[in-house]
Amino acid sequence: MNKDFIVPNEWSIIVDHFDKADVTASESIFSLGNGSMGQRANYEEKYSGDSLQGSYIGGIYYPDKTRVGWWKNGYPEYFAKVLNAPNWIGINVKINGEVLDLNTCEATSFYQELNMKEGWMARTFTAVLPNTNQIKVASKRFLSLRYNEVGAIKYSVTPLNFEGQISLSPYIDAGIVNQDANYDEFFWKVLDCVISQNNAAITSKTLKTNFYVCTAMATSLTLDDTLLSLKQITINKTKKVKLKYTQDVKQNQTLTLYKYASYVQSMNHKKEDLLKVATSNLQKAGDIGFDTLLAYQKEDWAAIWETADITIEGDVKAQQAIRFNIFQLNQTYLGEDARLNIGPKGFTGEKYGGSTYWDTEAYCIPFYMATKDKHVAKNLLLYRYNHLEKAIENAEKLGFTNGAALYPMVTMNGEECHNEWEITFEEIHRNGAMIYGIYNYVNYTGDYEYIPKFGLEVMIAVSRFWHQRATFSKEKNKYVILGVTGPNEYENNVNNNFYTNYLAQWCINFTIENIEKLKADYPKDLDRVLTKANLSTNELEQMHEVAQNIHLPYSKDYEVFLQQDSFLDKEIVPTSFLPKSQRPINQTWSWDRILRSCYIKQADVLQGIYLFENNFDTESITKHFDFYEPLTVHESSLSPCIHAILAAKINRIDKAYEMYLRTARLDLDDYNNEVSEGCHITSMAGTWMTIVQGFGGMRTFNNSLSFNPQIPSQWQSYSFTINYRDCVLKVYKSHTECVFTNESDAPITIEVAGEKLEVLPNALIKI
Amino acid sequence: MNKDFIVPNEWSIIVDHFDKADVTASESIFSLGNGSMGQRANYEEKYSGDSLQGSYIGGIYYPDKTRVGWWKNGYPEYFAKVLNAPNWIGINVKINGEVLDLNTCEATSFYQELNMKEGWMARTFTAVLPNTNQIKVASKRFLSLRYNEVGAIKYSVTPLNFEGQISLSPYIDAGIVNQDANYDEFFWKVLDCVISQNNAAITSKTLKTNFYVCTAMATSLTLDDTLLSLKQITINKTKKVKLKYTQDVKQNQTLTLYKYASYVQSMNHKKEDLLKVATSNLQKAGDIGFDTLLAYQKEDWAAIWETADITIEGDVKAQQAIRFNIFQLNQTYLGEDARLNIGPKGFTGEKYGGSTYWDTEAYCIPFYMATKDKHVAKNLLLYRYNHLEKAIENAEKLGFTNGAALYPMVTMNGEECHNEWEITFEEIHRNGAMIYGIYNYVNYTGDYEYIPKFGLEVMIAVSRFWHQRATFSKEKNKYVILGVTGPNEYENNVNNNFYTNYLAQWCINFTIENIEKLKADYPKDLDRVLTKANLSTNELEQMHEVAQNIHLPYSKDYEVFLQQDSFLDKEIVPTSFLPKSQRPINQTWSWDRILRSCYIKQADVLQGIYLFENNFDTESITKHFDFYEPLTVHESSLSPCIHAILAAKINRIDKAYEMYLRTARLDLDDYNNEVSEGCHITSMAGTWMTIVQGFGGMRTFNNSLSFNPQIPSQWQSYSFTINYRDCVLKVYKSHTECVFTNESDAPITIEVAGEKLEVLPNALIKI
Repeated sequence: MNKDFIVPNEWSIIVDHFDKADVTASESIFSLGNGSMGQRANYEEKYSGDSLQGSYIGGIYYPDKTRVGWWKNGYPEYFAKVLNAPNWIGINVKINGEVLDLNTCEATSFYQELNMKEGWMARTFTAVLPNTNQIKVASKRFLSLRYNEVGAIKYSVTPLNFEGQISLSPYIDAGIVNQDANYDEFFWKVLDCVISQNNAAITSKTLKTNFYVCTAMATSLTLDDTLLSLKQITINKTKKVKLKYTQDVKQNQTLTLYKYASYVQSMNHKKEDLLKVATSNLQKAGDIGFDTLLAYQKEDWAAIWETADITIEGDVKAQQAIRFNIFQLNQTYLGEDARLNIGPKGFTGEKYGGSTYWDTEAYCIPFYMATKDKHVAKNLLLYRYNHLEKAIENAEKLGFTNGAALYPMVTMNGEECHNEWEITFEEIHRNGAMIYGIYNYVNYTGDYEYIPKFGLEVMIAVSRFWHQRATFSKEKNKYVILGVTGPNEYENNVNNNFYTNYLAQWCINFTIENIEKLKADYPKDLDRVLTKANLSTNELEQMHEVAQNIHLPYSKDYEVFLQQDSFLDKEIVPTSFLPKSQRPINQTWSWDRILRSCYIKQADVLQGIYLFENNFDTESITKHFDFYEPLTVHESSLSPCIHAILAAKINRIDKAYEMYLRTARLDLDDYNNEVSEGCHITSMAGTWMTIVQGFGGMRTFNNSLSFNPQIPSQWQSYSFTINYRDCVLKVYKSHTECVFTNESDAPITIEVAGEKLEVLPNALIKI
Repeated sequence: MNKDFIVPNEWSIIVDHFDKADVTASESIFSLGNGSMGQRANYEEKYSGDSLQGSYIGGIYYPDKTRVGWWKNGYPEYFAKVLNAPNWIGINVKINGEVLDLNTCEATSFYQELNMKEGWMARTFTAVLPNTNQIKVASKRFLSLRYNEVGAIKYSVTPLNFEGQISLSPYIDAGIVNQDANYDEFFWKVLDCVISQNNAAITSKTLKTNFYVCTAMATSLTLDDTLLSLKQITINKTKKVKLKYTQDVKQNQTLTLYKYASYVQSMNHKKEDLLKVATSNLQKAGDIGFDTLLAYQKEDWAAIWETADITIEGDVKAQQAIRFNIFQLNQTYLGEDARLNIGPKGFTGEKYGGSTYWDTEAYCIPFYMATKDKHVAKNLLLYRYNHLEKAIENAEKLGFTNGAALYPMVTMNGEECHNEWEITFEEIHRNGAMIYGIYNYVNYTGDYEYIPKFGLEVMIAVSRFWHQRATFSKEKNKYVILGVTGPNEYENNVNNNFYTNYLAQWCINFTIENIEKLKADYPKDLDRVLTKANLSTNELEQMHEVAQNIHLPYSKDYEVFLQQDSFLDKEIVPTSFLPKSQRPINQTWSWDRILRSCYIKQADVLQGIYLFENNFDTESITKHFDFYEPLTVHESSLSPCIHAILAAKINRIDKAYEMYLRTARLDLDDYNNEVSEGCHITSMAGTWMTIVQGFGGMRTFNNSLSFNPQIPSQWQSYSFTINYRDCVLKVYKSHTECVFTNESDAPITIEVAGEKLEVLPNALIKI
């Protein structure tokens, strides 16, 4: 694809010309979603060029038989995949019998817009068909936030140099496949196709998992805004239903098709009701009408932006980027359903098919806590609480006992799906993120009750895992955790990864500390949980012993914690000595070379310091930053944001800005040549953190809310809004002033650069 | 399968009853081969039960598209697979229209014999067909050693309780597949089917690799030894040619089909001549006749046994086992063709499809040196010499430069085929085995000239690899080799594996030492090689520096070298504490648990001590043995032999015997429940070493030949014969005496238990 093909704009993503090379990238970037379902921005009309067709329904997955080079004991049998769902956007267009296909037409005045403020996508273009007929096409579509089973399309065709016959054929195609299917299996079984009048529906179910989905459409036509009552031809194949409308249209008249569609599925309805509910959804949508539905959409997005928006003055590209990140996060997950979560590519692609990674706890929860009501983050925590039994089973498969839990690396339903031993079995730090998520949530929201009601069970099960996973080294006279992979996946099967060991120690301590706390405040809950978990004082003491005596690799020479025991045996050569032609190293170096190099894919020790910054003084943070940043290649999308935040912390604002650029426009400028596969949804939360925690310096340790706003010289000002313990606070920062506006009815106490301040209700403080 | 289904016998493998559960195991164990081709012991007649059909032609492979879970940079695109070749053994049998199929008949008096002394396989049985016809069947077949493109079958049917019509339909089937094909691709293209008179042939070629093969058969029939001149019906399908002979046979008359077959292939002939050569082969075979061919076969096997046989008195199962090992090794490789090598499963199965592993250099070369003329071992070395360019390319793919070579883990044509990063990229010790093979060969045969003519080029390229692969650790002030997997594959991506580092150091030193030696004795060769390799004094000095200062992990507390830097961080618990239900751990433990455990799959430090025993004193060997043997689970077929040899070295004869049992009857008693996939050919050489180097104590370090014979209490005596530097020496050991018989015309100097002795030509010494 072409870099720089997105037109800078504050509120919209815009492409102003058609280039076949950009189509698959556009399909990702212009993706639509409403938290319940989503779709790539595939064209409605036929497109015979390169395309990745994708439409997805939250929560619906397929257990694709796993593919391995060499089987290892303990690997999961399948990889739960996000499923490509029946395509309901399709509209075939024929002009005097000639198919409209941008791959074979000459397209001019092409304009595509993803309006992030209002939540819709539109496309207009003029096409000259091979038969020389020239037409203007305009399409607009959106997935309704208010009626989250409904989507709508308005599709218009205007003959510009002729009069003739135009046929529009809206269809539903349930004969879809996943491009990343391991064995090219078909994942769906079509059960029923129905056509009645201008409506049609297909009921299908997923094989193996038995999710039932009814995909339905209702259509109507106008000619120059006058409703037509056309006789359609219906075409009903085994896996596809199609209506065909044919109309004679005069030059400059506009033929418009309205297509409402609905996904209704068995996670939310009885399977025997699906068609009925879908029909009723479409009836309602048709009654409300396209324009009113669109007006609702604007209202609902406005409400989201009210707390979620970040403004940046003086840098349109930065402004566009941060809004794109916030917009995509909200399209992916809105927090109303604890069975859903945030996939690495959201609804924008198939890759990394499993829905949930540790990204949720480490990166996404802060965003959702600050921009939404606290029940949203709570739902994300409950997702893991509800998977506790599966996490215990997962640990059992690896030989752990007595209720120890290992949360999966990748999952859809709580079971592990990944199958590289160095990740599946060894990247166990993910287990700590589950507990950090709870800690972070309680710290931020003040909802301490979550711990006695739900959190403690998870905390005990995870602490048990750490206790059992650590072994005693006589040589070191310490507990060690052998054979792990840290967040830096460019080291595998290492011993005593600092991040992992520190987190293990912290998890156990945090669990013990809270058990103590609950004795006084929630004795009944404590009793219930301890009984359920069958946790004895003896086991607790043993856990404590492990936490007290865990080995943390440290270099006295450099005064830094080491990534792992043997890190200093490596040749330490800063990335500045790496020839540009060899970067990214994951595309030019063999895996062994990467593993034995000193280069870091993703913040590892720094990730630990970021999470527990309150335990490190600035001098130590600086030492660690100066040691590790020159060795980090940031070849994970989750890396630059952590470096940006710490750089800001130690007043390296230029470095922070450099790192911000790497994270914010990752997809829009396609740094890694892979946006066509989908957007990096979870790292978008990291971008948000870069501004709020990085430049804004927001921290929420120890029940306090503090800031230390700084601004890059490239910007005139920026602002963000957060919801902290039900108070809405807006933070504005320019080169001359810093303003805190309390938009709620209660006072908020904040700390700014070490000084405590009270911001009165509906008042502001300028600094 | 049933354990213990093989009848003990000194010279034959015998099964004396038919059990469907044993068929696939028998197919492996009774396999036939003549070094150029081989086949599983599939039945000639139809068998509808479980079976793994397999017929293989030495050197013919197919690059099967690789299958991986997650692609890593540097992985090979394909896995070169041993190919299942056209089936020429097939003879369909119909009795009064009823198909003979042991899966549907009642079989009595079943007797199957693999006669190892004479090199043939026979089967007799009585079958009652569903139509109640009772017949006696006798088949005998062999693959000719003398005419190594020819095989022969004699197949007889005798009606026992009826007279009626018998039809015999010999065929060639080129529609064969590999069961382990990754994507169920068809590997062959049939080019031509020819039938003329009683003969037929199919010419086919492998896709991608374009090996051409003509598979031909010639048939004749007798009735009670009278030649019949039958009209056959010919059936010619796209991928199969079949002749059908139908004859009325009286009760107790015997109808016999002679089927001669030939594989003729384009590695050995022009492709346009294949059919002609095959026809001429069959003409010759027919002229010689079955009985005379069989007589030749006996002669030729007798010649092999003359130097290769090992006798064991007082233990029939041990006798049978060692002969089975020697027999299978000779069936697999006879050493006349430097393009062939010894696959882990030889011609007995498809698994581990690539032909050559480091097993050849570390385990097989000693066997072939001692039991055959030295040109055989030389051919094995030349195989690698001829692959040097590919090994350099392989190293380049991993980022090495300047002519450094990394020999592949698995290969057919010199290119790497394996694709697990921890093996492919990290199990680099294999590279050292290439040089050890040269050293061992020169030491044993005295053919020093191999080094200036061929070996030095390989030695330099491999030493360069070690030089580049080692990095300097400031922390240790030593050169280190990070991120490797040793022979013990139960530790991956470790630092400073003792075996690897020791071998690397030795390779460089050995190379430098020989360059010095050549200056005086082979200056022209040295000059040629140094010029070709472009090796400077400076590079040589740098190599030397690495070898001088390489880190070898050592424990002062235990006075042993450590497997790797962090070994003592593990919990050290002897295997005696491992519950039996958890063994083998590779079937019950998850991979991570294996990796962080102290358990050793295969001799690792001990393997190094075995190879360089002359550098360790007995006290040190004992310390290492006592440290590592209790931690070794021997879950590699290559492990017990090394422990047996070292146990014998330190006078633990009972332990040596225990280890001998684990290696010798591995396949016959199917210890690992996997013999149905094929036999463990390369570990059979380890079994041979267990007797000769273990109990016999033979060593060949420093141009001397020494022995230290011991005998397990379970045996009455044993004897073996070796060819050392063109002298044939027979060693006999009983509990009362030890006899060395010189069967050649020159004196041999040997050292027995430290004492030098001369054995005169055609004389013996008793001790």
